[in-house]
Amino acid sequence: MRVERGVVSVRTRRKTDVLDITELIRTALREMNTSEGILHIYVPHTTVGIVINEAESGLLHDIESLLEKLVPELEAYEHNRVDSNAHAHLRNVLTSSFVTVPISSGDLVLGTWQRILLVEGDGPRERTLLLTYVGL
Amino acid sequence: MRVERGVVSVRTRRKTDVLDITELIRTALREMNTSEGILHIYVPHTTVGIVINEAESGLLHDIESLLEKLVPELEAYEHNRVDSNAHAHLRNVLTSSFVTVPISSGDLVLGTWQRILLVEGDGPRERTLLLTYVGL
Amino acid sequence: MRVERGVVSVRTRRKTDVLDITELIRTALREMNTSEGILHIYVPHTTVGIVINEAESGLLHDIESLLEKLVPELEAYEHNRVDSNAHAHLRNVLTSSFVTVPISSGDLVLGTWQRILLVEGDGPRERTLLLTYVGL
Repeated sequence: MRVERGVVSVRTRRKTDVLDITELIRTALREMNTSEGILHIYVPHTTVGIVINEAESGLLHDIESLLEKLVPELEAYEHNRVDSNAHAHLRNVLTSSFVTVPISSGDLVLGTWQRILLVEGDGPRERTLLLTYVGL
Repeated sequence: MRVERGVVSVRTRRKTDVLDITELIRTALREMNTSEGILHIYVPHTTVGIVINEAESGLLHDIESLLEKLVPELEAYEHNRVDSNAHAHLRNVLTSSFVTVPISSGDLVLGTWQRILLVEGDGPRERTLLLTYVGL
Repeated sequence: MRVERGVVSVRTRRKTDVLDITELIRTALREMNTSEGILHIYVPHTTVGIVINEAESGLLHDIESLLEKLVPELEAYEHNRVDSNAHAHLRNVLTSSFVTVPISSGDLVLGTWQRILLVEGDGPRERTLLLTYVGL
């Protein structure tokens, strides 16, 4: 059994953005010594989320639109007295700061349509992902 | 320390459906060699989610109603230009593709009311759950 | 490789409440034998959630307000025929029953603004958190 670590850097492109980061994670994973286990993928940020879903371009826009509908950017949030990004924090609360994916034969186990998506809420920025593998 | 794997198949019953899958998972777990650790329960699908909550029948309907309120099926989603199930993808974004549950003495550690629920968004279908145990 | 367990008790203060529980978790973590791995933080309850975000006081109120907007307490939920807390269950469905955080040098790996937040939906109550460490 082993624990292996990796780091991925991603440059988001717009204030709100949904990016497919699957291949960036795969590239980092190839540098790690893994076989059978789980991979924890974690954003040490509070205004960006991570989810697993399909990366079809229309759906990426639908995710942005849904988050804007449920958590509008322009609303009287209390946090905006000290900053101007409450909506991005709140969208992260509705998505997540991490996902865990099974690893088999050293690769991500993903269904046909599954991709790992980064949900930027307060970009564009350089974002960091911390990878932790626990397994054989 | 060991990694153990299991698979569960579930037939969902309706287009939208919330099912208690706890005993199906327990059945698969009994075939696995586990004692103290964590169990990762993962759906390799993009239109079905997994959450932990109570399986009271009224609440299962409330979960369906809430998801229909927040993410209505009939809305002009961009993804529906290539498919007709954007709402199901988006509901998965608000729930999750996996849960992790502690395992003790080879069984799920669940509070009094906790059950593992599958949230179908584009059924009825045969769905697969991938189980990964990491522990002693 | 080892599995280590811990327990944290928290007294929530109001019916709905968002609390920073990071230092309570750190205190429990110091009693556990950990170095490099992951920590699973789990609530064995169905009316309280756990998320990672900033603990700025305005934002804690914004989280409460958002959950009240998306899942109002006073609505005709079916679960309320047998109980009176459907909104709290449903808010947990939108947040989560667990988070997993990397552990390095025996401490939580958190970004500058990240804190672990308990989202009470049906308090005030004594709540329990179950910690499971898997790692070196």
